[in-house]
Amino acid sequence: MAEETEIVNYLFKRLYQLGIRSVHGVPGDFNLTALDYLDPAGLNWVGNCSELNAGYAADGYARINGISALITTFGVGELSAVPAIAGSYSERVSVVHIVGIPSTKSEKHGLPVHHTFADGNYAVFKNISKNISQVCVTLDDVRVAGKEIDRVLRECYLSARPVYIALPVDMVLSKTPAKDLDTPIDLTVPRNHPDTETEAVEAIQKTLYSSNNAIVLVDVGAMRYRVLKEVQEFIDQSRLPVFLTPMSRGAINEASSQFRGVYNGDASGPEIQQEIQSADLIISIGPLNSDFNTGGFTRHTKIKNTIEFQFDCTKVGYATYLDVGMKWVLQRILDSVDFRKIQHPETAVTEVEKPADEEGKVTEPFDREVTHKWFWSHIGDWLQEGDVVIAETGTAMFGIMDTRFPKGVTAITQILWGSIGFSVGACQGAALAIAQSEKPTRRVILFVGDGSFQLTGNEVSTMIRHGLKPIIVVINNDGYSIERMIHGPEMSYNDIQPWKYRKFLKAFGAKKGGYKNHVVRTQSECYGLFNKGNEFSKANVIQAIELFMPKMDGPHGLWSTLESLTKFYAKL
Amino acid sequence: MAEETEIVNYLFKRLYQLGIRSVHGVPGDFNLTALDYLDPAGLNWVGNCSELNAGYAADGYARINGISALITTFGVGELSAVPAIAGSYSERVSVVHIVGIPSTKSEKHGLPVHHTFADGNYAVFKNISKNISQVCVTLDDVRVAGKEIDRVLRECYLSARPVYIALPVDMVLSKTPAKDLDTPIDLTVPRNHPDTETEAVEAIQKTLYSSNNAIVLVDVGAMRYRVLKEVQEFIDQSRLPVFLTPMSRGAINEASSQFRGVYNGDASGPEIQQEIQSADLIISIGPLNSDFNTGGFTRHTKIKNTIEFQFDCTKVGYATYLDVGMKWVLQRILDSVDFRKIQHPETAVTEVEKPADEEGKVTEPFDREVTHKWFWSHIGDWLQEGDVVIAETGTAMFGIMDTRFPKGVTAITQILWGSIGFSVGACQGAALAIAQSEKPTRRVILFVGDGSFQLTGNEVSTMIRHGLKPIIVVINNDGYSIERMIHGPEMSYNDIQPWKYRKFLKAFGAKKGGYKNHVVRTQSECYGLFNKGNEFSKANVIQAIELFMPKMDGPHGLWSTLESLTKFYAKL
Repeated sequence: MAEETEIVNYLFKRLYQLGIRSVHGVPGDFNLTALDYLDPAGLNWVGNCSELNAGYAADGYARINGISALITTFGVGELSAVPAIAGSYSERVSVVHIVGIPSTKSEKHGLPVHHTFADGNYAVFKNISKNISQVCVTLDDVRVAGKEIDRVLRECYLSARPVYIALPVDMVLSKTPAKDLDTPIDLTVPRNHPDTETEAVEAIQKTLYSSNNAIVLVDVGAMRYRVLKEVQEFIDQSRLPVFLTPMSRGAINEASSQFRGVYNGDASGPEIQQEIQSADLIISIGPLNSDFNTGGFTRHTKIKNTIEFQFDCTKVGYATYLDVGMKWVLQRILDSVDFRKIQHPETAVTEVEKPADEEGKVTEPFDREVTHKWFWSHIGDWLQEGDVVIAETGTAMFGIMDTRFPKGVTAITQILWGSIGFSVGACQGAALAIAQSEKPTRRVILFVGDGSFQLTGNEVSTMIRHGLKPIIVVINNDGYSIERMIHGPEMSYNDIQPWKYRKFLKAFGAKKGGYKNHVVRTQSECYGLFNKGNEFSKANVIQAIELFMPKMDGPHGLWSTLESLTKFYAKL
Repeated sequence: MAEETEIVNYLFKRLYQLGIRSVHGVPGDFNLTALDYLDPAGLNWVGNCSELNAGYAADGYARINGISALITTFGVGELSAVPAIAGSYSERVSVVHIVGIPSTKSEKHGLPVHHTFADGNYAVFKNISKNISQVCVTLDDVRVAGKEIDRVLRECYLSARPVYIALPVDMVLSKTPAKDLDTPIDLTVPRNHPDTETEAVEAIQKTLYSSNNAIVLVDVGAMRYRVLKEVQEFIDQSRLPVFLTPMSRGAINEASSQFRGVYNGDASGPEIQQEIQSADLIISIGPLNSDFNTGGFTRHTKIKNTIEFQFDCTKVGYATYLDVGMKWVLQRILDSVDFRKIQHPETAVTEVEKPADEEGKVTEPFDREVTHKWFWSHIGDWLQEGDVVIAETGTAMFGIMDTRFPKGVTAITQILWGSIGFSVGACQGAALAIAQSEKPTRRVILFVGDGSFQLTGNEVSTMIRHGLKPIIVVINNDGYSIERMIHGPEMSYNDIQPWKYRKFLKAFGAKKGGYKNHVVRTQSECYGLFNKGNEFSKANVIQAIELFMPKMDGPHGLWSTLESLTKFYAKL
């Protein structure tokens, strides 16, 4: 390798080494020169319809791939990505946001260039991004640029949060030593404080051995901090019952009988609530107690009976062991716990019996409308191993909580950040990551409401452009149904312009034979379409389904959560 | 009037008093209760496809109406509006951004509610908005809420910049004294420092009387700080030649012979440059010397020979009179200057002779492609008095500089901020403001490139929903042409997915008979369509025109500006 290389090439090569193959974003005059270097570094340029969509797509890509990158331009472009980056910050997703900015000389002279406030203040946009980034850096010093890139990318990966890299146009082609590229960035999680960890492990062992009916509650932190392998081993060894949460769907195999359900506080089924509340020990991995991840602040677990693993600490009852992060402490537990000493009621690990379903009998004429209750409990039968399921904020996100997944399903939702429109961009990014993965035939299925689709539906264009073949289910329930359930069911502000959702694939330039539109108005039509053996299910082309649902219908989990929140706030 | 009223009603009544009739935005759970109060206050809810679009639309509405408002929801919604609000901040437009936020109790307890980072930090979003707002306020104190609203709205109007008002859900219905509503908010521009103003006026008089061929250069500040009436009177009285700039198009009657052209530095016509450079005095009103408003930093005016009027100061040669703002000093000048004493070459004020145009002869078969040079110099003939012309950032914005406007044309561009996609949202807002104005029949004409249309084209849906009838010209030049001219003409990152632009009106739900699509591929087709007498020109329905232009063609002003900037930066 040459002794020196362009800063931009160094950066892009590092992205490639991290497993990134496609970079999202929108071109702009301050990033054009940099874009020339994507292709030589082995990176594919996506070219989204907007920076907001690019940010959502990068988030979706990272949820499949582990990390992602997007490139925007100074001021106008980067700010458009802010709500998406804030979402990645909130939900803990590793996204590298690279911004092409004016030359260091322009800034030095405070020139009133376009994309500024004409006040010489160039720092304002980076200042904004500091609020939503793990770290922000401007590559304006050629002497340290390479080291800075390595530091920031490492931070991005380990913190599971976005970082911001500003690249001035006059620095793009400046040279930096190339030698470091021979050594991959060290992505090892830092070791815990050894003595604290030892004491934590002892306390954990003691608690574990003295429990009689412990359960494991795997939450989103286990996914984001990449300990699912350790968690799976713990589950296999301990044979304890396992629960997921709304935010951790798909983290473990939901088809196993060891999996007992999604614990969502008072919005969960009664058996789930009972099993959680009768447990004498909760082994809680990466919990996040936000309103919509707890059925409206109704997660009834007691600190006293809980072992909690977090990114940066471990808690055993009321004792907090600071600087004992989940990665290494879980490893220590796997190495040191005598799993035979863990007591639990001998519930045999068997296949789950499928509950009888009154409504689902195919002998019925069921030309009834498709309700949330019916749809989400049935769609699981159609899903197959390895599917990627994306559920938009709104009724879909709450509905999918009732769907039992086959093995190996990846679920993408935005339960904490909850930005409507996210899912369409995320679908583009996830579908692209799947297409470039080792298993490119995994299906990508999007469930998005009509109101949300209106924000970012243009990103379907990018899916077509890149030959992606997701199944896009647009739930047409005539407006913002989730909001009707919260306030103003009949108020016109919850209405939207009725679109012709089956016109868009063609309008966005899908070629004849390269796309299909479908409509579902009844349960029987739903059965007809979502049918394992048919052409539709093979997803050989991009497909849009307009699924009509009643305007004021919502999933149980949503109603229950809203009710719990009303009670909660009344007492506050 | 009742003694007390809800804070939200107080706020909305004030918006109504300021002339606002429609409020833009997107509903969200933290603003729903507030939305109930729009209708009773006489305000119409727009309901945009996204908050970004809502922000652009509010900007467009304010450019017609003087001030506007949008409502978004906490975190996700408000951040999506940030790039648009930043645009209003940059370009100095009065936009009131109202954000529905969680209850004060939620914040006090730091609850991990959705739309946060689950870290108890609720202030982060307001902190972001502080960077792009004249003033930010949270209405969390019932004792001062009314006064705060008045203060902030006054600031918004006078500073010509956005303000941010956060309204916690538990404050929406809190009561505030209603009596103040009987007195309109005082929007008078504060008086200047009297002695400084007197000395400034004396210096101005002396300079004016000793000049022999002064010219007036009216720039964007004159529009934003609402002194066009004073400027028009000064022009009428002085009979001096007048120039506009790219950012001040339409500020004065361009059909008058006193108007000499658009001064855009070296990108201007040679006669314009000569007249500016030979003037011994430039009376410069509200100048803004950004790159694209000066033909690439080539505005050749000398400080020594300039009287400059700004929002907050007045300059006579090298002397700056601080705290002497343009409004009152212009008034003093009108009252005190003896206009007979102003010398100028006796150029008679007559009608301008229309230059002969080789290419424009209708006897030619001209099935030639439509070039920028041809289009922008011809489209002015089709425009009519009172038209609102919106030109998107890109080739359209530079092209329109070559179009001579009839009297009373309002132009909307974003030459400083330059966010692609702005114009579609702005068109919705402007068209709505026109529909609700005293002259609702004024036509609204949008020129937008295909690349830009892909960002915000969904907002055409909102135009249809509200029965607006703009003429939407989508320039299809197969990608980001302006960027091809800057860098990478043949690089794929400047390509876009080819859309079927004539499919969208129908897809967005326009009713049969309520819309029309057109296509223009040649100069003759262009003549056929843009023809004063025809049905198309009457704009009785919403219309989309797909106008094909060559991929690598650009207006003169763009090429010239880019050339000047290259030279400028090389010397930096």
